[in-house]
Amino acid sequence: MTVGELTQLRSWLGTPPRHPQQTHGVYESDAEVVRLGDGSYLVASVDALEQEISLGLYREPYTIGWVAAVNGLSDIAAVGAEPIGVLLSAVWGPDMTAGRRAGVAGGFTDALAEAGTFLLGGDTGDAEATVLSATAIGRTDAPPVRRIGARAGDVLCLTGEVGPGAAMAGAYLLEADDAFPEEWYRPMARLREGAALRPHASAGTDVSDGLLSAIWMLSSQNGLGAALRWVPDLVEPRAATFFRDRGLPLWLTWFSELSDYELLLTVPEAEWPAAKAAVPELTEIGRMTDEPEFTLAVDDRTIPIDLSDVGRFTRAEHSERAGMLADLLTEITTLGLP
Amino acid sequence: MTVGELTQLRSWLGTPPRHPQQTHGVYESDAEVVRLGDGSYLVASVDALEQEISLGLYREPYTIGWVAAVNGLSDIAAVGAEPIGVLLSAVWGPDMTAGRRAGVAGGFTDALAEAGTFLLGGDTGDAEATVLSATAIGRTDAPPVRRIGARAGDVLCLTGEVGPGAAMAGAYLLEADDAFPEEWYRPMARLREGAALRPHASAGTDVSDGLLSAIWMLSSQNGLGAALRWVPDLVEPRAATFFRDRGLPLWLTWFSELSDYELLLTVPEAEWPAAKAAVPELTEIGRMTDEPEFTLAVDDRTIPIDLSDVGRFTRAEHSERAGMLADLLTEITTLGLP
Repeated sequence: MTVGELTQLRSWLGTPPRHPQQTHGVYESDAEVVRLGDGSYLVASVDALEQEISLGLYREPYTIGWVAAVNGLSDIAAVGAEPIGVLLSAVWGPDMTAGRRAGVAGGFTDALAEAGTFLLGGDTGDAEATVLSATAIGRTDAPPVRRIGARAGDVLCLTGEVGPGAAMAGAYLLEADDAFPEEWYRPMARLREGAALRPHASAGTDVSDGLLSAIWMLSSQNGLGAALRWVPDLVEPRAATFFRDRGLPLWLTWFSELSDYELLLTVPEAEWPAAKAAVPELTEIGRMTDEPEFTLAVDDRTIPIDLSDVGRFTRAEHSERAGMLADLLTEITTLGLP
Repeated sequence: MTVGELTQLRSWLGTPPRHPQQTHGVYESDAEVVRLGDGSYLVASVDALEQEISLGLYREPYTIGWVAAVNGLSDIAAVGAEPIGVLLSAVWGPDMTAGRRAGVAGGFTDALAEAGTFLLGGDTGDAEATVLSATAIGRTDAPPVRRIGARAGDVLCLTGEVGPGAAMAGAYLLEADDAFPEEWYRPMARLREGAALRPHASAGTDVSDGLLSAIWMLSSQNGLGAALRWVPDLVEPRAATFFRDRGLPLWLTWFSELSDYELLLTVPEAEWPAAKAAVPELTEIGRMTDEPEFTLAVDDRTIPIDLSDVGRFTRAEHSERAGMLADLLTEITTLGLP
């Protein structure tokens, strides 16, 4: 859930009472957390998939099903919990033929299997639009990772590469559907990594709204800034080729309408060796700073960037794809990215 | 979830792997049940509300929100568990103005408060149709109530009255919206009753698809039949007046598109006094029988009825309300009801 979505939900619901054992405040962690009587923690998260479907961002039903499963599971991963399973509410729009529904089912069940988890139950129906809502449930004995807890000096790091989500979105915006094969976009919920890093991380979130949005959110929630560095290897090679071939900036992989679902974590310096040992693919992308400002080191230069308006692209109204791409490129310039 | 919905979901999903600690088989209980490491049981259920909204069965947004909350909580009640809370996915159609959304929020939060439980989290979005999916989560230390376990001779009983749901649906079908004020339809999830009856019941379900459907489902799942009796007091007085004033059979209260969310349980004879003591409003409506057939005692007569096709009304395609009502009355005649 983005800050915008949360604001929308709160403005709609007001402030309904929360569970007395709900240990994390609203928006303090990726998943909701309730302490059970035995001292363990139940975690849960719901995600509704509808806009990406109606826009046609996914061309294959299989991808829709895959993402529906990964969406919620990624939140379980971000708090370092073990998944129990997923409940699915599948409401089908008129264009969802039996064949397309079967495609969605294939992607959904394959993603569950890849994550080593299960469909617990579901409900289904028909409506004027397709809406897939998945609720992922998990648990953990140790306190779940929060978005709050980072300190200046902590290493800011990512569990894997970014890029395929942005390249998928890029192909959509360029109306060049075949330019990035959809089977190259199969993000995974980083469940193993989240659990392995839980003892070492001071804070964390998934990058389900893009890497830069996640950096901004994690920093501002902690009253901190970050000294970032550009790590070319962070961009997944096929996605890098996609953007380079089209003369588009690789910065686009740090944004994304479509997520790569990696985890962004802060790790205290003293814990960094242990964290790297637990998850070798963990990549440092910067350090947290006391000053609530952002810099970016590229090659030999260190430039200030302004993340306070990150996400304006996704918040804006767009009528057609070329305009969306233009807005996105403008956002990059506005942030000060080279 | 009805048998039809389950069939639809299974035919779509195939048979995805289930959690190894998922103790109840598919459709063996109202909620999904997973045994946790400490021996307690996690229960969860998801319900999607869309058709009732698009049809306009609820006139007030408040009622939509109320039912969205009660739907899932009723499944937690049916297995005798204690609710932890509800996650809500609220996707809004174009006709859902801010004012109408606020109405939905009011009903939703009031129903949670009435049930003494909480909103754990949510997600929201916009689409071409309104879809509210609520996932209710609960837990219990004792084995949850199943739909299976009833034996011949067990008392078949209900936790309260039926009628307001049917009267709401009746007003809709007659296009007499004001004939049954919507504030008379505020069903409750029978959480206290479900927990109090768990030690005494051999099987149970909620009547979310109507009383007769629930009787048929519970009986056939157990390979049994039932000797039913007509209990005039079972019909809520205002609903009874609604039907009598219009010359419509009170049997309509034993069906319902819109549910009263009472619990239908089977209780062994030896447990009946204790069950009645725990929930005094519990009403006997028959006995389970070895023969998988159904009889109904009305006044001095005992007549055979045929429940094998119950629910044909809700499965049929309807184009307009008068036709729906005619079909429903035909269904009553087909079942053999006097």
